[in-house]
Amino acid sequence: MASPSVAQYTLNRLSQLGIDRIFGVPGDYAFAIDDAAELVPGLSWVACANELNAAYAADGYARIRGAAILSTTYGVGELSAINGVMGSKAHRLPVFHLVGMPSERIQKQGLITHHNLGDNVYDRFQPLSAAAACVSAVLSPDNCIDELERVIREALRQSMPAYLVISEVNGGLPVIGTPAAGQPLTAVKRQRSVPQELEAAVQTILSRLEAASHPVAVLTHLVSRYGVREKALEFIRKTNLPTALTPNDKGTIDEAMPQYVGLYAGDWSSSEAVRDCVGQADLVLDIGGIVTTELNTGLWTGQYDPARLVSIHDNWVRAGGKVFVNVAIDDVLNALCERVTTRCADHGLKLAAPALTGAAADPTTSATFYPRLQQRLRAGDTVVIETGTCMTHLNRMLLPQGVSAEGQGLWGSIGWATPACLGVVMAKTSGHTWMVTGDGSHQLTLNEIAVMGRYGVKPRIFVLNNGLFGIEDVISERGHGYDDLAAVQYHRLPEALGCRNWLTAKVSTVADLDQVLDQIDTHDGAAYIEVMIPNEESQPLPDSTIDSGYKLRTPQPG
Amino acid sequence: MASPSVAQYTLNRLSQLGIDRIFGVPGDYAFAIDDAAELVPGLSWVACANELNAAYAADGYARIRGAAILSTTYGVGELSAINGVMGSKAHRLPVFHLVGMPSERIQKQGLITHHNLGDNVYDRFQPLSAAAACVSAVLSPDNCIDELERVIREALRQSMPAYLVISEVNGGLPVIGTPAAGQPLTAVKRQRSVPQELEAAVQTILSRLEAASHPVAVLTHLVSRYGVREKALEFIRKTNLPTALTPNDKGTIDEAMPQYVGLYAGDWSSSEAVRDCVGQADLVLDIGGIVTTELNTGLWTGQYDPARLVSIHDNWVRAGGKVFVNVAIDDVLNALCERVTTRCADHGLKLAAPALTGAAADPTTSATFYPRLQQRLRAGDTVVIETGTCMTHLNRMLLPQGVSAEGQGLWGSIGWATPACLGVVMAKTSGHTWMVTGDGSHQLTLNEIAVMGRYGVKPRIFVLNNGLFGIEDVISERGHGYDDLAAVQYHRLPEALGCRNWLTAKVSTVADLDQVLDQIDTHDGAAYIEVMIPNEESQPLPDSTIDSGYKLRTPQPG
Repeated sequence: MASPSVAQYTLNRLSQLGIDRIFGVPGDYAFAIDDAAELVPGLSWVACANELNAAYAADGYARIRGAAILSTTYGVGELSAINGVMGSKAHRLPVFHLVGMPSERIQKQGLITHHNLGDNVYDRFQPLSAAAACVSAVLSPDNCIDELERVIREALRQSMPAYLVISEVNGGLPVIGTPAAGQPLTAVKRQRSVPQELEAAVQTILSRLEAASHPVAVLTHLVSRYGVREKALEFIRKTNLPTALTPNDKGTIDEAMPQYVGLYAGDWSSSEAVRDCVGQADLVLDIGGIVTTELNTGLWTGQYDPARLVSIHDNWVRAGGKVFVNVAIDDVLNALCERVTTRCADHGLKLAAPALTGAAADPTTSATFYPRLQQRLRAGDTVVIETGTCMTHLNRMLLPQGVSAEGQGLWGSIGWATPACLGVVMAKTSGHTWMVTGDGSHQLTLNEIAVMGRYGVKPRIFVLNNGLFGIEDVISERGHGYDDLAAVQYHRLPEALGCRNWLTAKVSTVADLDQVLDQIDTHDGAAYIEVMIPNEESQPLPDSTIDSGYKLRTPQPG
Repeated sequence: MASPSVAQYTLNRLSQLGIDRIFGVPGDYAFAIDDAAELVPGLSWVACANELNAAYAADGYARIRGAAILSTTYGVGELSAINGVMGSKAHRLPVFHLVGMPSERIQKQGLITHHNLGDNVYDRFQPLSAAAACVSAVLSPDNCIDELERVIREALRQSMPAYLVISEVNGGLPVIGTPAAGQPLTAVKRQRSVPQELEAAVQTILSRLEAASHPVAVLTHLVSRYGVREKALEFIRKTNLPTALTPNDKGTIDEAMPQYVGLYAGDWSSSEAVRDCVGQADLVLDIGGIVTTELNTGLWTGQYDPARLVSIHDNWVRAGGKVFVNVAIDDVLNALCERVTTRCADHGLKLAAPALTGAAADPTTSATFYPRLQQRLRAGDTVVIETGTCMTHLNRMLLPQGVSAEGQGLWGSIGWATPACLGVVMAKTSGHTWMVTGDGSHQLTLNEIAVMGRYGVKPRIFVLNNGLFGIEDVISERGHGYDDLAAVQYHRLPEALGCRNWLTAKVSTVADLDQVLDQIDTHDGAAYIEVMIPNEESQPLPDSTIDSGYKLRTPQPG
């Protein structure tokens, strides 16, 4: 059998990880990759509306499948995607970004090509794209097999994007050497531990747990990224540790688990009980690595005292002044599950979903919308959470058993959710994908709705329309013209964008909302609901002793 | 009077160049800039649908006004814009990219913020954004006045973007020192010449011209970028030099000028006459700097023999083995206009606009559409040309007197035209703005239509819908699934996107097209016409002795 081409080999090797889609925009210089996508069994091309959207979609897909492929062309394509890939780096997602390049037949003659600055510098964009990755390579027939193994190993080990350049000509030439055998991502041992460091780390954690009177755990979404979510949940069940999330981690725990106590973010915690539970604990066991951004700590009111904190990161553990290195998180959690004897008393806190409020004729508001949405979620569903005020509100929901969520609280690039929802819904093999966004975010990437329609996926989308950048109105101050938005008629978009059999509606009362939620329950197709929301008085941000740089809004009277 | 803030001072100083709009997306870390935009007299904020669109809009605006302001936020915003700004660098447009940054009050405490990777590295994105600029600065109250003068000088001297970082706190603090006096861009001497180099360059050009039997000029769009278009046209009129454009330069000359001979691109020239006129000339005077990309030279069949070429670049001149440096193009053209005595005979070529073809019941096709569009153009109008097959067709039009055009043939980032059209229409003070795009390109940035509707601008937009990436279908080969597009109903988009009083239509016959063109003539508002075009057999690309990397299509029989 003839050797596969560099592009075919690359795609085939990546598909062995369990990836079945390529999100991208085709283009000159990338045709070798685009063509190979049609030839590699088990892989399908997803033609996204633009490259940033494709990067977001790959990000969403990788959250479910553990890895993803993104393909763009040289210069114009890869640079359009860079913000999305950087977000995957922030959120620790191995997205393999494959980029075309002018043929070496052109380069070696010093010829000038388009998608460049009019000179014969061909590697100008590589350092830019590589900055959004943790590892990169320029593939050739000779180096392809070896380089791919290195790149895959590092991308998975560091759980970050990889940047792979394949030229037009080399992409079509046969690889040289003996193909490597791939295996599914779930079978890959991503990190390895140095035994004595591992033993020391585990012993330290166990003794700190044993010595603690009021220990709690904080579980972060990075356990999902590192493939150890189930093991972390097993550890929590076994120890019965009261367990909080931070806002960035919404949906990481099964919120029906009795150990769950809510969201901890200092003064912005979901309840005073959880604020005190974590704030007054004598040991906080951080599983995954807490991110202490302002938005994740209540403007840094929820800082963690290093003396009371033990953090288990992807490949290092910190306990006060001790740092253990080269300790893989899966090894740490496995050892803890085997050896831990601590079992906490039940925390005794009562968590309840926000109650339904509002009569039929009342307007749709945040208060009436979110509890109704929550009631419709079922085990196996995933909620994609856009950055903005909707994230604040969704975080207050209590997710039913078996419901997960994906958000982008750290990178926080508005517009992410819509294409990410495409990636999530394509990656999931069961359960529904729900997406909630505001109009301020949705406008950035709404063209991806056409792609959803084309491929017949069935997300359930809610666009909350208040006519302005709500979150900026909150963290800045009221009344700035730059927070106002165009008067888009969102509910008319799916039809204009060619979506068929989509349930679309615009609702502005509780009765309308209830009716459309009933329809969604029985509709075998996508749903896209524009929910009119008045420009609400959000909760003012609390004062902080740290100057946040935000102009915090003065609470309005009444 | 109190000193202005750093952000106010910056915007005010830039507005003095003659800029009256800021294209951007507001955001945390950039509120100091966003707020200042509301306070500086003569400046208006244009809230674009996303940052890439904003960059494209700024690019379009700068083509008309000579410079533009783009504002985005830290990380997520600036990285989303980077492809658009890089395009402005390729096309030599001074776009001032203002970007917010977390407050130094936060940075100095080592606090972690969102829009970053979860650590306290705050300058991570600066080298990436700076790569799309020719000059950059991080502004503070102390350095603001001096740095701005440096940055403005270099951006205008090099005619490329500038990157300016303003932190949340510094943006709001008063500048220190004596404000500089600004002047309109048209009054700025952008480059200066070393006298003896200038004299030598001018003498060389004059003697080469005098010695030539069959000289021609090739005028490039960069003369518009360097502010010397009128002077270049004066030189052409004075010498009566037969003058060609390359495809990238469509619309740079007034095509009604008797000196115009058409587009030269080797085997892809607009006529055999112009191919021979330039190809057989014993002197090609390149005014502005010809770009020899494959798409601009008929797959490099239109290379220029250095022995027969004299090139006048922005600040250097090359004549064979001689290079003159530090010679400003305005000084060179002024001297040539004063001293040239060569006057060529009339070239004698007959140029004619493509004739109207097609009967009323015939389908709309490229052959029936473009000649009809051309008939509607009037002096003072500008045509914005998207990259793709529509560029090929528009290039074959003969633009009426006083009609200009803007395209992005070098950078060639599909999707550019729609937001660029917003920038052009806002920058123009008279005449209509027409835009022609294909569905393959339009899908990337169609959300900017909502912004056009919101601000009430009145472009005349034609979306040619053939259901696929036409240009890729040409330069790749037929039948690849990745060239197919979603079945968007484009003509329904303006209404869904909130545009009022837009003339919208979907046309598929010549009669429909003629009718809607009549309506446009009398409609006081924007027009958005979806023109159905069959998937046409394009002209096959010619063979080339140089391997282009493209899989050239085999001409189909019949």
